[in-house]
Amino acid sequence: MQRLGQQAREAATNVARAESGIKNNALLATAEILDASRAELVQANRQDLGNGKANGLTDAMLDRLELTPDRIDTMIEGLRQVAALPDPVGSIDNMRYVPSGIQIGQMRVPLGVIGIIYESRPNVTVEAASLCLKSGNATILRGGSEAIHSNRAIARCLQDGLRTAGLPLEAVQVVETTDRAAVGEMITMPEYVDVIVPRGGKGLIERISRDARVTVIKHLDGICHVYIDEKADLAKAEAIAVNAKTHRYGTCNTMETLLVHSGIAGEILPKLADVYGEKGVELRGCEKTCSILSQTVPATEEDWSTEYLAPVLAVKVVEDMDEAIRHINRYGSHHTDAIVTEDYTLSRRFLREVDSSSVMVNASTRFADGFEYGLGAEIGISTDKIHARGPVGLEGLTSQKYIVLGDGHIRT
Amino acid sequence: MQRLGQQAREAATNVARAESGIKNNALLATAEILDASRAELVQANRQDLGNGKANGLTDAMLDRLELTPDRIDTMIEGLRQVAALPDPVGSIDNMRYVPSGIQIGQMRVPLGVIGIIYESRPNVTVEAASLCLKSGNATILRGGSEAIHSNRAIARCLQDGLRTAGLPLEAVQVVETTDRAAVGEMITMPEYVDVIVPRGGKGLIERISRDARVTVIKHLDGICHVYIDEKADLAKAEAIAVNAKTHRYGTCNTMETLLVHSGIAGEILPKLADVYGEKGVELRGCEKTCSILSQTVPATEEDWSTEYLAPVLAVKVVEDMDEAIRHINRYGSHHTDAIVTEDYTLSRRFLREVDSSSVMVNASTRFADGFEYGLGAEIGISTDKIHARGPVGLEGLTSQKYIVLGDGHIRT
Repeated sequence: MQRLGQQAREAATNVARAESGIKNNALLATAEILDASRAELVQANRQDLGNGKANGLTDAMLDRLELTPDRIDTMIEGLRQVAALPDPVGSIDNMRYVPSGIQIGQMRVPLGVIGIIYESRPNVTVEAASLCLKSGNATILRGGSEAIHSNRAIARCLQDGLRTAGLPLEAVQVVETTDRAAVGEMITMPEYVDVIVPRGGKGLIERISRDARVTVIKHLDGICHVYIDEKADLAKAEAIAVNAKTHRYGTCNTMETLLVHSGIAGEILPKLADVYGEKGVELRGCEKTCSILSQTVPATEEDWSTEYLAPVLAVKVVEDMDEAIRHINRYGSHHTDAIVTEDYTLSRRFLREVDSSSVMVNASTRFADGFEYGLGAEIGISTDKIHARGPVGLEGLTSQKYIVLGDGHIRT
Repeated sequence: MQRLGQQAREAATNVARAESGIKNNALLATAEILDASRAELVQANRQDLGNGKANGLTDAMLDRLELTPDRIDTMIEGLRQVAALPDPVGSIDNMRYVPSGIQIGQMRVPLGVIGIIYESRPNVTVEAASLCLKSGNATILRGGSEAIHSNRAIARCLQDGLRTAGLPLEAVQVVETTDRAAVGEMITMPEYVDVIVPRGGKGLIERISRDARVTVIKHLDGICHVYIDEKADLAKAEAIAVNAKTHRYGTCNTMETLLVHSGIAGEILPKLADVYGEKGVELRGCEKTCSILSQTVPATEEDWSTEYLAPVLAVKVVEDMDEAIRHINRYGSHHTDAIVTEDYTLSRRFLREVDSSSVMVNASTRFADGFEYGLGAEIGISTDKIHARGPVGLEGLTSQKYIVLGDGHIRT
C-alpha cells in the first residue's frame, strides 16, 4: 500500500502537468477499448454476479453490481463526455486589477492523489478514474471484493488507455488485494493520499470517516423527501412522487419519505397508493395517512430516518410547508429534497431554507446526479458543506491557488 | 463551552436567513462604535502591552498585539469594506438548462458556526467576526490571554453593533475565559462548530490540527521565497527583495529565503547586502553566497525551513529556475512565493509549477493578504488544497448547494 501510494504521488506530478490533449487521448482510447471489450467485461461481471448470489448479496447490492449493456454504454459515453469537458487545470478565473496596481486571479490546480473506496458498483471504477485523470489527479481505486473480477477487467482497459496516451500507468491504480487492512492503511497515509472518496453503504462510510486522517468527501445516506404542497399541480405531483420512488430503488437519490399537505392528502394519497400498490411498494404511514389509507402499515419513529433502498416508502401528512421543512431538516440526510408546488413564494422559501445538497422545485429527486447535472459524471455526492456540496465533478477535484502579476510592485 | 456552542448553533439559523441590509447595519454600526471608542480601545490595549512586556513576549508578538491608530483605522475600513461587498449568501451561479429540461444552479449557503482561535493580534476579532457575519455564519472567538483586555473592548463594540441591527448577540461570541481547556472543547464539538480557523504560532496550529474533530482552515507557517532570475530587472528585484523582507518582520507573508540565479548573484547580492545591512537584517548564506558576501553567516540545513519572523534572511544561489522551484516546493510551506523575471516563458512555468497558495511574478510576497486581494479582509490563509487555498474571505466561509427547477420533470 505504501508502494502504491509512493507511485501515485510520483505519477500525480506528471499528470498535473499533462496537457489536456494527452489526458483526453487516454480517456478516448479507454472508451474504445471498453467498447471492444464488452464480452470480456460481461463475462467477468457474470462471475461476480454468480459469486454474489451464492454469497447471499441483497437484491439492491446485486442491482448495483450488474454491468448491463446500458451501463457499459453509460461508462463509454461518460468517458467521451469527460474528454469533451473543458480541462479545469490551469484555468484562471477572476483575473482583475486591484487598487495597488497588481493583477490577481485564481488558477485551478489538482488536489493530488485521490483514494476511492467503493462497494458493489464496478462502473464507479471508470467514472472515478476518468474524472480524477481529467482533473490532473492520480487515483488509487479500492473496489469491493464482490466486484473484483469486473474491476480488474475495467482496470485493464484503463491502463491500456493510459499506455496509448503515453501517461504513467500509476496514474490509475487498482488495489488488487481484497484484504480489509488495505483500506485502513489507505485512509491513514496523508503523505501519499490527499482525499478519500468512499462510495457505498453507510457502515463503510461511517467507518472510513471515523478513522481517516485525510479529508473525506462523502454522503452517509440519502433520505430524500418529496413534499407535495396544497398548491401542487396534482398531475406533476403524481408523476414526481412515482418517479422519485420507483425509477430505481437502490440509489441514494431515491425518495424515502413522502410528505403531503393535509389540504390535498385526501385527494392525492388514494391515487398514489393505487400506483404504488401496482408497483409493489409498501407504504408506512403516519396516523393521518393511515386514516386516509386504511390498509397502510403505521410508521414508527425509526421510519422517518431510514434509507430503505427498497420498495418501501414512509408517508406523512403535514399541516403546511413549515412543518415539511422542519421534518426534512431534522430527519433528512441533507442529500436531496423536492417540493411540488405552483406557489411562487413557497418555492423561493423552500429553495432557501431546506439545508440539503440539492433542493428542487417540481422535479424528481432522481435527477440529483453528476451526469444529469452536466458534470460528465460524478466522483460522489457530498452532503457536507466543506469543499464541495452535492454531486462532485471535475471542479470538486481541484483547488484554486492565487496568482499575482506585478511589474515590480511593492507593498507600502 | 457547550452552552456557547448551543447558542451559536441557534443564532446561526437566524443569521443565515438575515437579509443583507440587516447584516450591513450591524457592520456599519460597529464601525461607528469602534471609531467612537478609540480611547477605550487604546487604553485596553496598553494594559495588554504592559502585561506582555512584563511577561517577556517577543518583539514579534508585541508587534502583533499592538493596536496602533492605523490598525484601528484598518479595522474600521475593513468593516465598511465588508459591508460594501456583495452578500454571498443566496447568490446563485451557473443557472442553466440541461438536456433533460430541468434548470440547474448553485446557491451559496453559510457553513454554520465558525470557531476562530487566535493569539496576539486583537484586530483579528473584528476581521473574523465581520466576515463570518456577512457570510451568514455565527462565530465563536477565542483570542489569546495576552490580548484579553483588547478583545473584550472590541467584543463590546461588536455586540453593540449587533444589538443596533436587531440581530442576536450570540451571533458573535467571545470566549471570556483564558482557560486552555476551552480550546480543547471547542475543537471537538462537531455538533456545534463546523469549521475551526486557528491563527497564530505554529505550535498552536499544529496542536489544533492534530486534535480537532472538525475541518481546520489553516496555514502552519509562511516560509515564503523570492527567486531573482537571471533575466530579472535588477531595480524591480531590489525593490521586491527589500520590501518582501523588511516591510514587516512578524507576518506570515514575509520572505524568509531569497533565491538568486548564479548568473546575477555577483552583481545584485552586494547591493542587497548593503540595504539589508542598513536595516539590520542578518543574512545566512549558502556556500556560494558566502563566497560573494564574505561576512555572511553560513546557513545550515535548518535555515531553509525556518520561519524567522525576525530580521534574519536565508540566501541561496541557484543554477536556474528549475532548482529554485525544486527548493521552493521542498522547503517552502506552500504559502507565497515570487519570481522576479522579464522572461515570458519562465514566468508562465513558475506560475504553473510552484505548488503554493499564492504564486507571484514581479510583486512582493507581502501582497498575499485578503485585504490587498480585495476580499475585504481575510479569515485566514489556507495552504491546504481542500475547500480554500490562499487568503480566505467571504466565499471561503460559504458552500454551494445545487438548486433544481423543473415543471413536473421526471427522470426516464
